[in-house]
Amino acid sequence: MTAIDNAPARAAAFLERLSQAFARNDSLLCVGLDPEVGKLPAHLKGLPPAEAIVAFNREIVDATADLVACYKPNLAFYEALGPEGLAALRRTMVLVPPEILTLGDAKRGDIANTMRLYAQALFDVYGFDAVTASPYLGRDALEPFLSRAERGVFILCRTSNPGASEIVDLEVDGEPLYLAVAERVRRWNDNKNAGLVVGATYPRELAAVRERCPELPVLLPGVGAQQGALEDSVAAGVDAQRSGLLVVVARQVLYASSGRDFATAARAAAQALRDRINRVR
Amino acid sequence: MTAIDNAPARAAAFLERLSQAFARNDSLLCVGLDPEVGKLPAHLKGLPPAEAIVAFNREIVDATADLVACYKPNLAFYEALGPEGLAALRRTMVLVPPEILTLGDAKRGDIANTMRLYAQALFDVYGFDAVTASPYLGRDALEPFLSRAERGVFILCRTSNPGASEIVDLEVDGEPLYLAVAERVRRWNDNKNAGLVVGATYPRELAAVRERCPELPVLLPGVGAQQGALEDSVAAGVDAQRSGLLVVVARQVLYASSGRDFATAARAAAQALRDRINRVR
Repeated sequence: MTAIDNAPARAAAFLERLSQAFARNDSLLCVGLDPEVGKLPAHLKGLPPAEAIVAFNREIVDATADLVACYKPNLAFYEALGPEGLAALRRTMVLVPPEILTLGDAKRGDIANTMRLYAQALFDVYGFDAVTASPYLGRDALEPFLSRAERGVFILCRTSNPGASEIVDLEVDGEPLYLAVAERVRRWNDNKNAGLVVGATYPRELAAVRERCPELPVLLPGVGAQQGALEDSVAAGVDAQRSGLLVVVARQVLYASSGRDFATAARAAAQALRDRINRVR
Repeated sequence: MTAIDNAPARAAAFLERLSQAFARNDSLLCVGLDPEVGKLPAHLKGLPPAEAIVAFNREIVDATADLVACYKPNLAFYEALGPEGLAALRRTMVLVPPEILTLGDAKRGDIANTMRLYAQALFDVYGFDAVTASPYLGRDALEPFLSRAERGVFILCRTSNPGASEIVDLEVDGEPLYLAVAERVRRWNDNKNAGLVVGATYPRELAAVRERCPELPVLLPGVGAQQGALEDSVAAGVDAQRSGLLVVVARQVLYASSGRDFATAARAAAQALRDRINRVR
């Protein structure tokens, strides 16, 4: 198997590459490439599932690549189709122009010996520029990711699901666990390639994280179908340069239309979202 | 793609199936099917990687299936080979006799909409009887796993890596986070299919978890290459019936010999481990 390689583009440290990605299209938008066969436009549903997904992703990427900073495939959407789904992920990765970042939303968390192999899969087989990961096992577990200075590692902090508070709001030394995690991620950031995942459904918590970690990039899911307030979250999440925030949208863009015009509709939705975000920053 | 289906064997609730698996071979042993091409016997290294892995797994399973309660493939070892590695995982799952449990060590943790797709992948595409998962996002995130009453969900509690204490030992309400997690997993266990992952490198912590959660099955990694003390951990981890504990060993069995006799050596190692465990329980 040939690994996907765009090494020259990766010579720079991750934070610099991220900054270039924000500037290129004047956009903080990160489109989630999370296709579900049952939700695809009718004219694609007749194809074999993996083919339908690649055809869909190709049109979405072609229609939006000049409007985004990053594409974020969520691995689960591909894994649910078995090995053929992962083959579709590989084909999708090739569709993304090399100057646009790719983020593998995998949220892996295991001991270092296992994470070494997840890093191999995500960075070397699929060629992601960045990934998401879990903080639960501590720094040594994340080292195989963090040691790749040219790649980004966005670590779960405060998530966007309704029950998130059950664990991450537990009080540790007088503050919620998610802030204790944020503080540790700061310390793990020797290579300037760590970031945080903070859900848009909790703008107050996002503001607290941003205050604590002014220098860390933040991945912000939940502004779309999860009904976060876009403007509040962007205002709370940007850094001192009014940047440093990847705003994730998936369903609002992917399924803006269920007809043959889905790509045109996706472009319009992405443009509107980029502009709404830019008006706040 | 045809899903792997052995529905009749799954009519029973998970806890009952686990209990039957312990009894069948009088064994708490859970062999990790974590093949790495670079570590395989020389005569298999000439094959394409995915073929080599399946051939290796076939001989390991054939040599040990009457000595174990469960096989535990760690997904990372297959994902590192790309889509072909996942195809090798599918072929491996078919090699395991239906009366032996299979546990997909994937440690997934994401919002419910994503976990629904991970459940589809792990339970329906690959056909695992049980999985590992992360507690970080709380109960609602785990619901797509926990709602499958006939399948087991082993949730990370206290892991076996050197740096585990950095997060899970943080004090919450006067006790370490891992005990707060254990307590919550008890509450999430409506379907009697939840368990905990507790590393063998920390037998004192394991004893504290067992005292708090007498009814939960425990998955115990780290007795082998991670240098836990087998006897201490088994004594600390078994339940009141001297059972309820899946003792994970991978490298000690898989790589007991690097020659053509690797399967015979794996069998001898598995038998010795099963017997050592049984002498303590």
